[in-house]
Amino acid sequence: MAQPEQVLTQCSVVVDAGKIAAVLPTDEAKRRFNATTEYHLPDYVLMPGLVNTHGHGAMSLLRGFADDLPLQEWLSDHIWPTEERWVGEEFVRDGTELAMAEMLLSGTTCFSDMYFFPDQVAACARKAGMKTQVAFPVVEFPSSWARTAEQYIHKGLELYDEYKTDALVDIAFGPHAIYTVSDDTLIKVISLTGELDTAIQIHLHETAQEIADAVGKDGCRPLEKLHRLGALSPQTQCVHMTQISDADIELLVHTGAHVLHCPQSNMKLASGFCPTAQLLDNGINVALGTDGAASNNSLNLFAAMNLAALIAKGFSGDPATLNANQALTMATINGARGLGRGEEMGSIEVGKAADLITIDMATIQTQPLYNPLSQLVNSDCSRRVSNVWVDGQLLVADGELQTLSQAEIINKARYWQSKIAGA
Amino acid sequence: MAQPEQVLTQCSVVVDAGKIAAVLPTDEAKRRFNATTEYHLPDYVLMPGLVNTHGHGAMSLLRGFADDLPLQEWLSDHIWPTEERWVGEEFVRDGTELAMAEMLLSGTTCFSDMYFFPDQVAACARKAGMKTQVAFPVVEFPSSWARTAEQYIHKGLELYDEYKTDALVDIAFGPHAIYTVSDDTLIKVISLTGELDTAIQIHLHETAQEIADAVGKDGCRPLEKLHRLGALSPQTQCVHMTQISDADIELLVHTGAHVLHCPQSNMKLASGFCPTAQLLDNGINVALGTDGAASNNSLNLFAAMNLAALIAKGFSGDPATLNANQALTMATINGARGLGRGEEMGSIEVGKAADLITIDMATIQTQPLYNPLSQLVNSDCSRRVSNVWVDGQLLVADGELQTLSQAEIINKARYWQSKIAGA
Repeated sequence: MAQPEQVLTQCSVVVDAGKIAAVLPTDEAKRRFNATTEYHLPDYVLMPGLVNTHGHGAMSLLRGFADDLPLQEWLSDHIWPTEERWVGEEFVRDGTELAMAEMLLSGTTCFSDMYFFPDQVAACARKAGMKTQVAFPVVEFPSSWARTAEQYIHKGLELYDEYKTDALVDIAFGPHAIYTVSDDTLIKVISLTGELDTAIQIHLHETAQEIADAVGKDGCRPLEKLHRLGALSPQTQCVHMTQISDADIELLVHTGAHVLHCPQSNMKLASGFCPTAQLLDNGINVALGTDGAASNNSLNLFAAMNLAALIAKGFSGDPATLNANQALTMATINGARGLGRGEEMGSIEVGKAADLITIDMATIQTQPLYNPLSQLVNSDCSRRVSNVWVDGQLLVADGELQTLSQAEIINKARYWQSKIAGA
Repeated sequence: MAQPEQVLTQCSVVVDAGKIAAVLPTDEAKRRFNATTEYHLPDYVLMPGLVNTHGHGAMSLLRGFADDLPLQEWLSDHIWPTEERWVGEEFVRDGTELAMAEMLLSGTTCFSDMYFFPDQVAACARKAGMKTQVAFPVVEFPSSWARTAEQYIHKGLELYDEYKTDALVDIAFGPHAIYTVSDDTLIKVISLTGELDTAIQIHLHETAQEIADAVGKDGCRPLEKLHRLGALSPQTQCVHMTQISDADIELLVHTGAHVLHCPQSNMKLASGFCPTAQLLDNGINVALGTDGAASNNSLNLFAAMNLAALIAKGFSGDPATLNANQALTMATINGARGLGRGEEMGSIEVGKAADLITIDMATIQTQPLYNPLSQLVNSDCSRRVSNVWVDGQLLVADGELQTLSQAEIINKARYWQSKIAGA
């Protein structure tokens, strides 16, 4: 599919040096090209790799650790104390590898991450061959990675320097939220992102409470506040946005800021609903994220597509809302654009990176196949992902990880479970 | 787990003559029993088979046939004309086998079905070894199975006689809805269910429109109308119930009627929201269904559990609403009770049927494993179902169907696709 809505059959994609060299009828491909490796997959869909625009990979080690609890109790009594006790280089490395394994096996080729020890995340992604945007955290409270906002920024800038020319890893600023980052720090971050021409990802309008608190404190909604500080631009990634006013929509349209929708997390934590179809209708770029496994509890972007479509229909009262093509677009090219890499990836076009996945459609769960787009969104296709390539490199072959050790990752997850649960 | 909330480890289940003979520590089981076949599954969950209380199996042949459309257009321009043209014995047999294959592979051991040619459904289930409640359709409009309401009932009664003593198949009455069945027919059905001591399944309160129409026509809500006709009892299965008033809750409590919740279908068709947690809090039995694949588009009851939990939290605004244990209960013992088989199946208890499934938890997607219940509901466990037994008979072994031919079923789905799409 050159465009998301286009389904081509009897078609081949030619890859050379990690890039898409041609998209053409298979007959013609056979005549014109002499490939070193050929894949013949008549019953498969070949599509762009999925782009997971928001998550906290290492939190996979807390999957199911404390579910079904009120939000503040979940954070204050379970997640935060556990993080404080255990988060370090080893936790982040092992947790990120677990997250990457799950994402690769379900067809994600690029992910954004926001967590402590972002240097570990960047190194893990590079080693595994995945694309990532590492949004290094900036908060006012101390962690084992940094003590002060200044130190978070300083360490983040070192990371930025280290990966400036890296093909797989982008470094972005990840100020946690307007209620955990001071105005002074925000101003500093905004100034630096302008200077370095880099992206900024922030949790925004996650709950009604966040809005009420901000209106009480600042006299305006968080999005408006960020705008006044000069933060909103096509390099701004607003995560969640479950509370949207007409003025918010105008601001998003006007500034070109992106909305990163995490449907599972919004429902599981009862945060609210992001009116994705309305945003898309206004020309706002809406992409998808899984959020961390502690608030999902999976990193399956096919499931996020499905839930995004279902809740958009359910909430609007219109079953024609957010069709399969729109859901797929959100998970691919919109994700790439959200991370500032729309020219490089997110669709099958000549010159773009060969970030590709194949999905077996000859299964009980996906037959009959009147409309492949519909099945991809509604029929749980993550389990049918067979091959995954990033820049033409095969990272999953026949459902098996090629650059990560599944057995080792599971063993490490068990090691952390016994440590954390036994503590 | 003898009770849904109980997770036992180092435990064995002993099966004899299709029934659970003992649940005891593995050490003790080894001493006390000398089994002809033993399964050692240290990294697996063994749990009751899932009960899918509402569906239209044969509609799997219309999976993804016409998605993302307004409800009336979907029905009038796509589903109904297609059914009118193609539905017959062969369509129902092939479609039901496709549905059963998908359900078995995702851990469902018993399903309810409401479709034309219910004789085919009953025969298919018996042949495959699955448990089913066949709710034969009763409507006022003609189909290729029957012409008049009288004929629907007559044919249904013949079916009832044929399966009266069958261990796997129950026959129930399936009057479609109060707006497609006349009062006279409803009264006849209600009288017969009383006489035969059999169940009645009906689509009820699916949309706000249905309520508004009934109030306009009958002067009361559909549930109230059924009550006045004497239809509500512990043998009544109300499917959907997305519109619930306080008076509705009182009626459900008072009469012991069951609510069958189909979360995917309610969201995909934008029908409304069933307040499951509120109903459960009132002591009403709420079970789960997938509905047909045309409005889902899968028959994965693990996905229904997950979505039921997510929307209950999202709509109540409380993340503690509908916890994992409640979701699992809805998919197992509540389903068995809803279908009037709570004494026979739905939990692992001595004397109950050996309707059991095993799920591999040693996977990337399910580790770490702090709380198995949480993973079963939130981490897409359908794909990890390895073995499925019904009455002790192995129907799925290591993920492979034992009584149905996967290749044949897929070929037939393709045959119908080419017929229907090519027409």
